[in-house]
Amino acid sequence: MVAGFSYSGIAANIKSTGALDLGVVHAHGDAVAAAVYTRNLVVAAPVVYCRETVGGRARAIVVNSGNANACTGEQGDADARRMAQIVANDLACAPEEVFVCSTGVIGKALPMDRLERGIPLAIRSLSEDGLPAFAEAILTTDTRAKLRTATADGVTVAGVAKGSGMIHPDMATMLGFVFTDAVVSPEWLDTTWRAVCAETFNAIIVDGDTSTNDTAIVLASGRVEATPDTLRVLLLEVARELALDIVRDGEGGTKTVAVRVTGARDVACARRVAETIALSPLVKTALHGEDPNWGRIVAAAGRAGVDLDPAALQLWVGDTLLYAHTRWQGPDAETAAHDTMCTAEYGLRLDLATGSAEHTAYTCDFSAGYVRINADYRS
Amino acid sequence: MVAGFSYSGIAANIKSTGALDLGVVHAHGDAVAAAVYTRNLVVAAPVVYCRETVGGRARAIVVNSGNANACTGEQGDADARRMAQIVANDLACAPEEVFVCSTGVIGKALPMDRLERGIPLAIRSLSEDGLPAFAEAILTTDTRAKLRTATADGVTVAGVAKGSGMIHPDMATMLGFVFTDAVVSPEWLDTTWRAVCAETFNAIIVDGDTSTNDTAIVLASGRVEATPDTLRVLLLEVARELALDIVRDGEGGTKTVAVRVTGARDVACARRVAETIALSPLVKTALHGEDPNWGRIVAAAGRAGVDLDPAALQLWVGDTLLYAHTRWQGPDAETAAHDTMCTAEYGLRLDLATGSAEHTAYTCDFSAGYVRINADYRS
Repeated sequence: MVAGFSYSGIAANIKSTGALDLGVVHAHGDAVAAAVYTRNLVVAAPVVYCRETVGGRARAIVVNSGNANACTGEQGDADARRMAQIVANDLACAPEEVFVCSTGVIGKALPMDRLERGIPLAIRSLSEDGLPAFAEAILTTDTRAKLRTATADGVTVAGVAKGSGMIHPDMATMLGFVFTDAVVSPEWLDTTWRAVCAETFNAIIVDGDTSTNDTAIVLASGRVEATPDTLRVLLLEVARELALDIVRDGEGGTKTVAVRVTGARDVACARRVAETIALSPLVKTALHGEDPNWGRIVAAAGRAGVDLDPAALQLWVGDTLLYAHTRWQGPDAETAAHDTMCTAEYGLRLDLATGSAEHTAYTCDFSAGYVRINADYRS
Repeated sequence: MVAGFSYSGIAANIKSTGALDLGVVHAHGDAVAAAVYTRNLVVAAPVVYCRETVGGRARAIVVNSGNANACTGEQGDADARRMAQIVANDLACAPEEVFVCSTGVIGKALPMDRLERGIPLAIRSLSEDGLPAFAEAILTTDTRAKLRTATADGVTVAGVAKGSGMIHPDMATMLGFVFTDAVVSPEWLDTTWRAVCAETFNAIIVDGDTSTNDTAIVLASGRVEATPDTLRVLLLEVARELALDIVRDGEGGTKTVAVRVTGARDVACARRVAETIALSPLVKTALHGEDPNWGRIVAAAGRAGVDLDPAALQLWVGDTLLYAHTRWQGPDAETAAHDTMCTAEYGLRLDLATGSAEHTAYTCDFSAGYVRINADYRS
């Protein structure tokens, strides 16, 4: 799929269901690597291992699903190191060149006997066509695999992700793995990957709970020359689609909504207002009810902890100005906004009129029984 | 009910259902008053009026339900002032001595014709036994009225509240009104009321959305001498029970849980960690599932934005130590914690071991269909 890598996904009996639960990625040569990890202070053993050990170059990734190896104490640290060592032994590389990720139930020791047997099997089934199997092996409560590709000027970027929006049962780790055949420097990739993640994997808002295991890794095999601009656009495209796939897979969610806040003093203010709106249960139930309830959106902005002038606010739903300078824009605007909200994916925009910075957060609606008691209230 | 006050609640046709929707409280003499308002930057017209106009002494409160008079522009400001003026005319006091509160749908102009007719009727039906009718008249989506009393050393405190936890349909304003016959100074009452609200009305966490209308008012008629300690305890008791009644009335909620964070560096840190846990959808679904899922609680603490040492954390469910220093305390602790979680009201305690400050947040569980897809996952 991307020159320079092979992939696999097998069932190693870590999940009780018999589903695929162990994946390996092998970089045929030294790959340039960058990674972004959870900001939660409570982090799982594999995150500690990767953060402390794996640097700007890597040869492999090993991932198991079904067990997060989180809150597992010293045994967990030893198990994460051992997973890297098994891969390193089989692929003749150093354990410092192996990213380790785990996702699933927390607080339980990894079934290391199954990983000791499973990892060599996964390595034996590596294939250049194995990305779909790898994408399958990293899932937990997801309802479908998430795989996206983009190409331009001969450069390819492909990526997979796991994570289920709306509600994160047992921490539902967010994992993202992106691969490219482009030639890059470790410094450029690190800087670019952080910026890309800020706008993609770190811009999706589901329930506000970050996980102990969240990890997003990019590997570049260095086979194709690419301009920085081309590669940045491709990385952004693949990462954004994967991030949106996570929102789209939200349990019970039926809408994917981009909450864009413009006219902010700085990006931090824009992000804070956008995230407060995107997290508000009141807003999310209104999204489900297809109710252009500008009052809930404006009130969420009002409690975001950002200095703003309520009289300056303007709110668009899709292209429709619904509320401006404390005034509802009337029944025609309401009807147009409602029509937009009846679609599955659309955008909201709130302008603060205090500057020129902006941020977009991606969210889903609150549906199911949660909504039956709430969304229809205003009518 | 409390010497020095009379109360009424009538149906003024503001709600389309014919339910009580207009209430008045009359202080027979000058009452000492204190009030705490929403911190939302987007505030309703009556809150603006009260904050700017009504001071440490008051003669009346007028409240309508069914319409929040929020996001109603200059007309809303004029309508709030007019409500105070109508009361002042009838009770022969100044409009600056009349608190005005509204709750209900936002963004619609008040039906002033009905208020012009209704307020004099409400004043004519004032009675010293009218507090239950007043309690009824302030409700919106609440399933029941909330009225609490406490007495000690001849002093009486009585209060009513409205607000429905869990989900706040259309901003579901939180309103609290507390009355006492005690003799107090305006300064003491203001300081004490702020402290009481911080631990009660401002310690309940339902969905994180503050309203444009939240208001908590206390009036003291000065008929009975009381020690400050006695009165503080009575105010705290009545306000806490009213606040808990709001949580207990949470739509779909089945549990009321006190989330106590101890050993914090300062109260702000304790509050931040307690609120993050109390707001976490992951924690709230585990509460509903009666699942002693310490991992979710510890992970919520980890993302609270407070500097803490994950290895120092200890977590109790009721009296049971469930998790300490990165270790689960075993199946007996798990069983005891589960038994506690099967009750309707209980406490969690997380100790941070970084200081001696603490805060308790009160929350409810996430239930209904929202939970069907989540709470049973771990088993």
